[in-house]
Amino acid sequence: MVISTRDLALAGADVARDFAAARAATLALCDPLSPEDCAIQSMPDVSPTRWHLAHTTWFFETFVLEPQIADYVPFKPAYRTLFNSYYETVGEQHPRAQRGLLSRPTLAEVLVYRAVIDQRVLELLRRLAPTDRPAWLRVVQLGVQHEQQHQELILTDIKHVLACNPLYPAYRQAAAAPAVAPAPQGWLAFEPGVRWIGREAGGIAFDNERPRHRVYVDSFELADRLVTNAEYLAFIDDNGYGRSDLWLADGWAKIHADGWAAPLYWVHREDGWHEFTLAGLRPLEPNAPVCHLSYYEADAFARWAGARLPTEQEWEIAVEDESIEGNFVESERLHPSPAPAGPRENAAQLFGDVWEWTSSAYAPYPGFRPLAGSLGEYNGKFMCSQYVLRGGSCATPRSHVRPTYRNFFYPHQRWQFSGFRLARARG
Amino acid sequence: MVISTRDLALAGADVARDFAAARAATLALCDPLSPEDCAIQSMPDVSPTRWHLAHTTWFFETFVLEPQIADYVPFKPAYRTLFNSYYETVGEQHPRAQRGLLSRPTLAEVLVYRAVIDQRVLELLRRLAPTDRPAWLRVVQLGVQHEQQHQELILTDIKHVLACNPLYPAYRQAAAAPAVAPAPQGWLAFEPGVRWIGREAGGIAFDNERPRHRVYVDSFELADRLVTNAEYLAFIDDNGYGRSDLWLADGWAKIHADGWAAPLYWVHREDGWHEFTLAGLRPLEPNAPVCHLSYYEADAFARWAGARLPTEQEWEIAVEDESIEGNFVESERLHPSPAPAGPRENAAQLFGDVWEWTSSAYAPYPGFRPLAGSLGEYNGKFMCSQYVLRGGSCATPRSHVRPTYRNFFYPHQRWQFSGFRLARARG
Amino acid sequence: MVISTRDLALAGADVARDFAAARAATLALCDPLSPEDCAIQSMPDVSPTRWHLAHTTWFFETFVLEPQIADYVPFKPAYRTLFNSYYETVGEQHPRAQRGLLSRPTLAEVLVYRAVIDQRVLELLRRLAPTDRPAWLRVVQLGVQHEQQHQELILTDIKHVLACNPLYPAYRQAAAAPAVAPAPQGWLAFEPGVRWIGREAGGIAFDNERPRHRVYVDSFELADRLVTNAEYLAFIDDNGYGRSDLWLADGWAKIHADGWAAPLYWVHREDGWHEFTLAGLRPLEPNAPVCHLSYYEADAFARWAGARLPTEQEWEIAVEDESIEGNFVESERLHPSPAPAGPRENAAQLFGDVWEWTSSAYAPYPGFRPLAGSLGEYNGKFMCSQYVLRGGSCATPRSHVRPTYRNFFYPHQRWQFSGFRLARARG
Amino acid sequence: MVISTRDLALAGADVARDFAAARAATLALCDPLSPEDCAIQSMPDVSPTRWHLAHTTWFFETFVLEPQIADYVPFKPAYRTLFNSYYETVGEQHPRAQRGLLSRPTLAEVLVYRAVIDQRVLELLRRLAPTDRPAWLRVVQLGVQHEQQHQELILTDIKHVLACNPLYPAYRQAAAAPAVAPAPQGWLAFEPGVRWIGREAGGIAFDNERPRHRVYVDSFELADRLVTNAEYLAFIDDNGYGRSDLWLADGWAKIHADGWAAPLYWVHREDGWHEFTLAGLRPLEPNAPVCHLSYYEADAFARWAGARLPTEQEWEIAVEDESIEGNFVESERLHPSPAPAGPRENAAQLFGDVWEWTSSAYAPYPGFRPLAGSLGEYNGKFMCSQYVLRGGSCATPRSHVRPTYRNFFYPHQRWQFSGFRLARARG
Repeated sequence: MVISTRDLALAGADVARDFAAARAATLALCDPLSPEDCAIQSMPDVSPTRWHLAHTTWFFETFVLEPQIADYVPFKPAYRTLFNSYYETVGEQHPRAQRGLLSRPTLAEVLVYRAVIDQRVLELLRRLAPTDRPAWLRVVQLGVQHEQQHQELILTDIKHVLACNPLYPAYRQAAAAPAVAPAPQGWLAFEPGVRWIGREAGGIAFDNERPRHRVYVDSFELADRLVTNAEYLAFIDDNGYGRSDLWLADGWAKIHADGWAAPLYWVHREDGWHEFTLAGLRPLEPNAPVCHLSYYEADAFARWAGARLPTEQEWEIAVEDESIEGNFVESERLHPSPAPAGPRENAAQLFGDVWEWTSSAYAPYPGFRPLAGSLGEYNGKFMCSQYVLRGGSCATPRSHVRPTYRNFFYPHQRWQFSGFRLARARG
Repeated sequence: MVISTRDLALAGADVARDFAAARAATLALCDPLSPEDCAIQSMPDVSPTRWHLAHTTWFFETFVLEPQIADYVPFKPAYRTLFNSYYETVGEQHPRAQRGLLSRPTLAEVLVYRAVIDQRVLELLRRLAPTDRPAWLRVVQLGVQHEQQHQELILTDIKHVLACNPLYPAYRQAAAAPAVAPAPQGWLAFEPGVRWIGREAGGIAFDNERPRHRVYVDSFELADRLVTNAEYLAFIDDNGYGRSDLWLADGWAKIHADGWAAPLYWVHREDGWHEFTLAGLRPLEPNAPVCHLSYYEADAFARWAGARLPTEQEWEIAVEDESIEGNFVESERLHPSPAPAGPRENAAQLFGDVWEWTSSAYAPYPGFRPLAGSLGEYNGKFMCSQYVLRGGSCATPRSHVRPTYRNFFYPHQRWQFSGFRLARARG
Repeated sequence: MVISTRDLALAGADVARDFAAARAATLALCDPLSPEDCAIQSMPDVSPTRWHLAHTTWFFETFVLEPQIADYVPFKPAYRTLFNSYYETVGEQHPRAQRGLLSRPTLAEVLVYRAVIDQRVLELLRRLAPTDRPAWLRVVQLGVQHEQQHQELILTDIKHVLACNPLYPAYRQAAAAPAVAPAPQGWLAFEPGVRWIGREAGGIAFDNERPRHRVYVDSFELADRLVTNAEYLAFIDDNGYGRSDLWLADGWAKIHADGWAAPLYWVHREDGWHEFTLAGLRPLEPNAPVCHLSYYEADAFARWAGARLPTEQEWEIAVEDESIEGNFVESERLHPSPAPAGPRENAAQLFGDVWEWTSSAYAPYPGFRPLAGSLGEYNGKFMCSQYVLRGGSCATPRSHVRPTYRNFFYPHQRWQFSGFRLARARG
Repeated sequence: MVISTRDLALAGADVARDFAAARAATLALCDPLSPEDCAIQSMPDVSPTRWHLAHTTWFFETFVLEPQIADYVPFKPAYRTLFNSYYETVGEQHPRAQRGLLSRPTLAEVLVYRAVIDQRVLELLRRLAPTDRPAWLRVVQLGVQHEQQHQELILTDIKHVLACNPLYPAYRQAAAAPAVAPAPQGWLAFEPGVRWIGREAGGIAFDNERPRHRVYVDSFELADRLVTNAEYLAFIDDNGYGRSDLWLADGWAKIHADGWAAPLYWVHREDGWHEFTLAGLRPLEPNAPVCHLSYYEADAFARWAGARLPTEQEWEIAVEDESIEGNFVESERLHPSPAPAGPRENAAQLFGDVWEWTSSAYAPYPGFRPLAGSLGEYNGKFMCSQYVLRGGSCATPRSHVRPTYRNFFYPHQRWQFSGFRLARARG
């Protein structure tokens, strides 16, 4: 993440406010959880909630306190390894797949760790004169963005943990989505040409959103809303999972190896399809966007529908003039919602609801430069074999979302709130 | 387990007393543990403490309450599957390797489950007239034995969980063992002949200890104490793990596949060998019995020492006239202790300290009959590819140990408190 | 294998004759095979035919020529590793699971290797004066026994290779078995008592058959013929593979993990059950002994039948006075045959047809001593987690079979010609 | 592959000539191989030579003969499954990883299969009037391209098979490369702008090279030769495999999981680095291009060198005006050669020597349309998680190479003749 000096006009009081708010928001997410809930790792991709709480704290201790405080005495030296996620240049890491084997430090101990580090960071921020805008302030802001990423991960990960339990326990009761029947999907048309993509200098952004650069984009059309559960059911009912011609070879192999025949969290019972949500098991809502899909499934549906997935450039062009509104974590629905009823002039659901798979492999922009030092590991080293998703989800904080924001996952992963919209060449 | 009618003279008040004591003892073992400690499964062989608490309760609900109470209303129907260990004839089981994925029911909820079922069992026992000695009383007693087995497993399993943590947290401080230097190992000699083996009719026993039967046993000699850490270190220092001629082929493959070069829980540091114990990481005690060994390692050491492991029959013959004294869980040392100093006339450490590997494959005794019904799955179906261990350990309750008791594990398993003593042909 | 000095009265001309005959018999087995057939390893347990041809030659080069010829120049130094099966004390081994990756030396080159080593061994034998009976002659005889073991393995392994091919090619046409309907199975009764087991001193035997020793055996009854395909089909039709109470826990796990529902090589087609044989796919012969079963399956059938498997001691006692007659490789049937029709006074099919699973874990006899040096690895190091089979099969050379002969395999293995007969306590 | 009607002016005699030449060239490649060589599959990616011989024949039988000949009688119905590579819409496939388990049909039988199908195809081509240019002629031409792809695979696969053999046998002696010391690497500069990429309509091309379309490409510089062994050794000697900051996260995980510390086929001996080649093990030639690298390794080297890999568009722009000359299979060197000595005005080694990794994920061009029917599976379904390689190798037939040709492999694969050249932003 690069933050220009100009943006730091708000620091440090404003940074302190953002910091405190983000840290409090993380804790609030844990309210409904027992210590046991916070201890479990249901697969290697998932981290225990308690680990998230500690790791985000480790981030501030390692990247803010240690470099800024002379003779810094670490809270606990062993935490440097225990809560290092993937920063090879920082040192050893407790193996990712074994995060769920740690019963200590307990939740109570981790909360103390958080409180102490929070205190130290705020103290550091307080010492900052209004005219003093050091580079490390940007790291605090990066830490806030990082905290927000883990807020979303806490929700996606605990959803996976709870879904492993045959009792299907709810995380918490959620706000109801409006019961509407959206209009059929329409298409928005875009002209060909050379366009600018990526975040301009200045303003908050991760390094992977930069530099802003030119691309040539052919004319195309983009769906004006997300694909729904009802539409995806039609694909299933048309033997979508049984027709090899619809699938990428890797996807065809995956659905057979793992026996996939529906999105993750769909459960078929005698009385029809249900979906596990953070509010428990509920009958499938036909008008809600389909969610928890792999890239393979999104791609196969698109082929079945005679369309394709958009590129990340097409998606970014389409949202250029859109305001960032949508169903974010603040709505407390914790689940994607149907598109508004009635006719649409603009695209709906661009932001929030679900991360939208694009057909773009996650790659560096021309001229990409990772952050200096260990923080250079933040994004760049993952630019291989993953696909870009755009737009944020119902588990993303509103303030975390940007039009140029690039999320990325492997094509087989589907425990994120991932869905998609269609695109096609202009006819 | 078969309990004769004669033994039930003590029932039902005495059974109620045993039941209440066993159930309380289990809870006491959990005192030092946090909810997180109780949630974690560090490998498929290990079960979370919380699962042990629930499963032992399930045992009484399934095998005592359900058959005895007309129109029995289960505490929670889903528990029948969740906490079924391996009883195929009872129904489905939550997969063993996924016991650690369950965060619900929480520890608090499981404790309620225990309390309710305890109440119901005691009520049932109270209804029993003094002259009334029904067959199901034997099942309650079997449940008490079963409870004791899981008490030991709670300790062995939590030791494995804590050992996975680089912080090496202690389970609790333990009573110190006497600091003694035992005399060198001597040999006790036994005559050849036809001998009786196994538990006679009457008295508490598992089905696998019966029927009592004759075997012919050649003359042999048995070591008068357990092999010590110091002796095992000499084996290591003599390149014991590097000499193929000392090892069974399966063992040689295993130590290379898993990189074994010392017993489980041994940790080499700059200042020498340490051992993880339930009281934390401690310098290796040279005079204590070596512990947490596989069958392969015990067998290789014996070959290196020019000896062999005893058969289970030899071991049983040797203990025939010995009183059941030793370092059991009641000593609160939670770790094997050195043999007493001074000269020995009888064998030391036969009971307690460590389960002793024998060279006997776990097999049915001639004429073996498993218990009727689902409880027939208790022991018989495991009589394949496992080896018999004898004598109980420092984690076994004193009242659980019998001269005829047959414990059994696969030859590669070493997370139990397993050690060994030597035997040899009479020269 | 231990051969007494007395037996060497026949040496060396007789040994040379045995050697030449065994070596020729091996080559004859390869007549029907193409170079491709001889190259393939269909699973780690299986070795390519070409590897068998080379390894048996390596045996004579390594254990006879190298020690006996001063300044011996190896045929090819690289073969010492390439064709070492499992002799750690000889040196490195080409990994077992990668024997099928070697295309060189070609079959033609291996045949040259055989011819050259044969010549050298015979030359060595010729040099032997009639009165000169050195210890190494015993090693040549061990090599002949070893050669015979690999003759059987060539057949069992090529059967597995060909069975992997959807074309089901035949190894060669086989002599037809007599079409008879054997009488129902009867029982032979044996008295209890202390009995002698194992091979007496003198005479050819492997080290694992010794020392001869006493055991106490209770009274028992032994089936007077092998279990047939028809009887095993009744077990299948009675849902034998679906009833957990019939199975050892390991077996129940295995049949589910690998989807077993019938013996290996059974193929169900529209017109009923077929069996892949060395003569190709043929309709299942109901009266032939069931074959290619795991220990788990034999054990489950026995439980279903209200019986059990015999111990190896019981089996040995039963054959004590029987002559070694049966359906061996010399019959050229290459498949087990129905028991003779008509009433039986003695047990049928004790030798030949199929190796009979016993309930005895493979363990050293009391006082067991492996051969000295590298040949000590021949048998002893495998005495763990395997079960003893007795009696030889339709793929075993007649002269290789002895009443005390102990074959051994893991309980899940079934690519050998393995079947079983029932036993039970005397009623 | 799409061939325009115009190109078919040459048909059918010319197609027959191409067909016959390609089929003969395949057979010629097998001359040095024994039946055993042709039988072995050394890893799932590798196919036995014999399988290649049969599969390319299957291609003509399935896609040319069956559709064109009424009541076509297949050579052997079972071959439809046995030799189907990955065409789901054609039907079942013998599992890829089990191609090496088939010993039948033998090499001799496969050669008969080839001869018969060749005859039938040529007969079909002969029946074609000079003015008659049917669509299926294009399929024959696709089959010729397909045959050429498998010619290269025969070489890359047999290299892997032979390299698994500790004897390091040579495929055949190879023509020597000129012993030259190329000039240091220089840079060629390219201007930014909108450029056309992909194969224009008409002319031979695979579907994945089309449609021709515009892209915007920034200014860049491209290395004027390939990276050499000497340069790659400098990377190794500078601890290149030990510095996490140089590696993609997936690559870092892979080199640790598989213990990679040098390119595939590099062997370190006492007298220095050697390389296994199709002519056997040879001392590493410092001036030859480095070969048999994964994408991860090429990418890490580029980062270490302060450069990056080119995109496939940059590479294509650079070769636009270059003639297709280089070290192809026809040179009979079967190994990449040093770049010519002396100063360079143009880039060297663009074609032949090694396939060059680009940084471009393999994706459909805008407006991509796969071929109709089963042949639509030829390329499109693999457009996921693979990277594009360009330019052909020393194992590629000269006539198979095109400037727009897109080869593709997974980033971890390195058994192909894969190397790379550097690129960088224009300074």
